[in-house]
Amino acid sequence: MTNFNDAIGVFDSGVGGLTCVKEIIRLMPHEDIVYLGDTARVPYGTRSRETIERYARQDIRFMEKHNVKLMIVACGTVSAVMETSPIFSDCHVNCCSGVIIPAADAAAAATKNGRIGVIATQASINSGCYERELKRLMPHCEIFSRACPMFVPLVENGYTQVGCPPAEFFVKEYLSDIKNSGVDTLIMGCTHFPLLEDVVGAFMGSGVTLISPGKVTAAQMYDALKAQNALNSPDHKAKIELYCTDSAELFAQNAGRFLGDSVNAQIIQCTLD
Amino acid sequence: MTNFNDAIGVFDSGVGGLTCVKEIIRLMPHEDIVYLGDTARVPYGTRSRETIERYARQDIRFMEKHNVKLMIVACGTVSAVMETSPIFSDCHVNCCSGVIIPAADAAAAATKNGRIGVIATQASINSGCYERELKRLMPHCEIFSRACPMFVPLVENGYTQVGCPPAEFFVKEYLSDIKNSGVDTLIMGCTHFPLLEDVVGAFMGSGVTLISPGKVTAAQMYDALKAQNALNSPDHKAKIELYCTDSAELFAQNAGRFLGDSVNAQIIQCTLD
Repeated sequence: MTNFNDAIGVFDSGVGGLTCVKEIIRLMPHEDIVYLGDTARVPYGTRSRETIERYARQDIRFMEKHNVKLMIVACGTVSAVMETSPIFSDCHVNCCSGVIIPAADAAAAATKNGRIGVIATQASINSGCYERELKRLMPHCEIFSRACPMFVPLVENGYTQVGCPPAEFFVKEYLSDIKNSGVDTLIMGCTHFPLLEDVVGAFMGSGVTLISPGKVTAAQMYDALKAQNALNSPDHKAKIELYCTDSAELFAQNAGRFLGDSVNAQIIQCTLD
Repeated sequence: MTNFNDAIGVFDSGVGGLTCVKEIIRLMPHEDIVYLGDTARVPYGTRSRETIERYARQDIRFMEKHNVKLMIVACGTVSAVMETSPIFSDCHVNCCSGVIIPAADAAAAATKNGRIGVIATQASINSGCYERELKRLMPHCEIFSRACPMFVPLVENGYTQVGCPPAEFFVKEYLSDIKNSGVDTLIMGCTHFPLLEDVVGAFMGSGVTLISPGKVTAAQMYDALKAQNALNSPDHKAKIELYCTDSAELFAQNAGRFLGDSVNAQIIQCTLD
């Protein structure tokens, strides 16, 4: 049975999932959070399906050990693979959500013309998960998708500002066809991508709604916990534990860009394999 | 004792070390080669020293199991870390070489003005290994070094041509200070970097000698094996085995860019952890 005192678990291949944690803190400031970033093996999005499944199984076992009341798979790549994989079939967490369904729900609600763009990692695009979910919700929608492999390194190295030549180059390279297809909604299907929101938004124009899967998933989980009376009490002082598989020092260096500097969290190194 | 029939072992974090394998094949076409690319955990160069050491130990154990007569650590990052680490102290391979010393030797031989540039991964630059080795060889040389974290993703995604805007941008970003310092020799201290040789060479100018560690290490190992009469016989038909930790299919897709298409090799998936 769900214990409202238990933490919310979030995992990602690296630091990107902290964009989701940031939104959880904003919406649910009294929740304990256990975050896992597999920074010793990041990125997942360029690897084979088989390797992603192996890593995801270890991530899930880690979350199970921490007795979380809810597990959010913030990693777009794992979310994409899990949809058609048995990796979650023997998972012992009561409630578990990837980011694909919340993002597809939000995109379907936002679009007016039924033309939706999807950008994500190569593994996510290969899986076809967004297409399947969007077609289930809106059988007549048209979907335009593209892998954006250079976005993760651009974000990790801080090339994210409007006017920054390589950021502008790759946004144009990856998004021109999608823009020309007349979409009015764009799913930014990787936890790193929202950090390029300004450049992507300026290129796509104000008529296009950008969907950040981490954010909309946090919002959907807030509604779910509230409906079940499973939120922690307002006098609880939240404890935030950030686990990483590479060094805590390296994690701390990179986390600020995603989480902001005001969050008081403990960073702990752990092993999965 | 070294058996001249045994293979030459080469390992790297990913496919980049195939630039070294290519040179071995050119210089020593009758040698069997066992290559290991840890593609399920690539890249190493952005990780902590501790994680790099853990991965390197597993790579070395793999090579030991294959009874190689010579082991080349083609990975610049592992080569950098091993120099001041005990990871090789209990290694059972007779002869083992990283790429740092051969590259420093070649740079010291090439420079006329004693001003040498070094570009590599963040972990390699942090280690200070090139500085130490160059100062040992040439106490009065001046060294100008810089980490180039965007070069690996540029190479892996094929943005390597002269005139390609992001390649030109990052070459200028990373190399302007080094160029302005008046170096006449530049060590391209990561196995991926030689694929950007044309852009780097055009930017630095024809007066600057570019050193490719994988190539010069292959050449130094050729001399060493020849001197020891440890080369395989000229009637031996070489067998080339390429092991990878992520899928063989994905490896095959990426290997061609580094190795060329004419090489007949077997690709085999393996596990290390």
